[in-house]
Amino acid sequence: MNQQSPSSPSPRTRIRRLAEKASYEQQTLYAVIDEAYLCNIAFNDGTSTHCIPTACWRIGNALYVHGSNGGRLTKILTAGTQVSVAITHLDGLVLARSAFNHSMHYRSAVIYGTFELVEDKQAKIAAMDALMDKIAAGRKHEARPGNAKELAATSVMRISLDEAACKISNSAPSDDEEDMQLPVWAGVLPLAVKHGEPMHADNGSIPTPAYVTGWVKTA
Amino acid sequence: MNQQSPSSPSPRTRIRRLAEKASYEQQTLYAVIDEAYLCNIAFNDGTSTHCIPTACWRIGNALYVHGSNGGRLTKILTAGTQVSVAITHLDGLVLARSAFNHSMHYRSAVIYGTFELVEDKQAKIAAMDALMDKIAAGRKHEARPGNAKELAATSVMRISLDEAACKISNSAPSDDEEDMQLPVWAGVLPLAVKHGEPMHADNGSIPTPAYVTGWVKTA
Repeated sequence: MNQQSPSSPSPRTRIRRLAEKASYEQQTLYAVIDEAYLCNIAFNDGTSTHCIPTACWRIGNALYVHGSNGGRLTKILTAGTQVSVAITHLDGLVLARSAFNHSMHYRSAVIYGTFELVEDKQAKIAAMDALMDKIAAGRKHEARPGNAKELAATSVMRISLDEAACKISNSAPSDDEEDMQLPVWAGVLPLAVKHGEPMHADNGSIPTPAYVTGWVKTA
Repeated sequence: MNQQSPSSPSPRTRIRRLAEKASYEQQTLYAVIDEAYLCNIAFNDGTSTHCIPTACWRIGNALYVHGSNGGRLTKILTAGTQVSVAITHLDGLVLARSAFNHSMHYRSAVIYGTFELVEDKQAKIAAMDALMDKIAAGRKHEARPGNAKELAATSVMRISLDEAACKISNSAPSDDEEDMQLPVWAGVLPLAVKHGEPMHADNGSIPTPAYVTGWVKTA
């Protein structure tokens, strides 16, 4: 994928429904992923199709997830199973003058491909550090690092972001011309993820890190 | 499914990983669904597995979605395709004293089964009214109702909630005994969906409904 310009959609990622909301820009995709803590992974295990939420993060042009060795998700993903990964941020409810023109503000990404196991030990440690950095910048230098046993019990997997598409819906309510004068309130009811007051689990003797004291303000 | 007691998990819904977080209680499932505006539907179309986010709501013991007639999702779902539907609320980041014990607070539901088309016209209208009620109570009496053409162009589909499981993670950080005295901050950084200031799209002459004036307070 070219780093500067939008990629061409594949047959799987070309958005047909509300195509005007489609984006194939890499920066749009990265922004949707980087704001997300969770993704949904769809896969078929040969018997059933499943949809499983799990933590995610991004390094370069790949989405990363991790799992317990021997867990179903790890086994399926490392077997080269074709997957579809969806991430959605809901930004608001769009109230139009007519019932059937109600909609939502959202930013979503859908990724297609297969995961691969991160086998190299240093790459695996770097990937887990990147997850820690996403949770709280600098935390990786404070928390006890994973030991050999913990690292060995965890699988880190990545999927290329080459085959992906975003859909961005952020327009004002859209009503038919003949409905514009109806005496019905129209507008957007915004939704956003906010940070709440941190809950301390320690005995109070530990200095509170800046990413904790500043948590509420960074929402 | 018994209305009062937890259902037995199926082979597909029995949670193996972190099984202590599993819930098969109907009220837990309903609460997770009722708080969600979006679900993720996983399906296989015979060529690929897909994961598609879409609006959802609940009536009784069924989850409802809607789509454009002729759209891919509508065609696939009404063809009796086996699906898995996931809904997740992320409630916080759990910072433990050791890197590998970091986790998240969440409430998730995964549903298995097949969708069926709501063919009866009155049931279809009632389902769309229920969606409007979820967006804003009473709104269905204000907005122009769907006309015959709009109603005919939309498919409403439902899936039974009989085969479903929830996973609820809400514990304090869990560290190994030997890590408890490490000088590392431990606790939870809460995340929650909040309501923002409504954005008016009208000319200001329309009385503002209570669900708009009260929107921020109900977050």
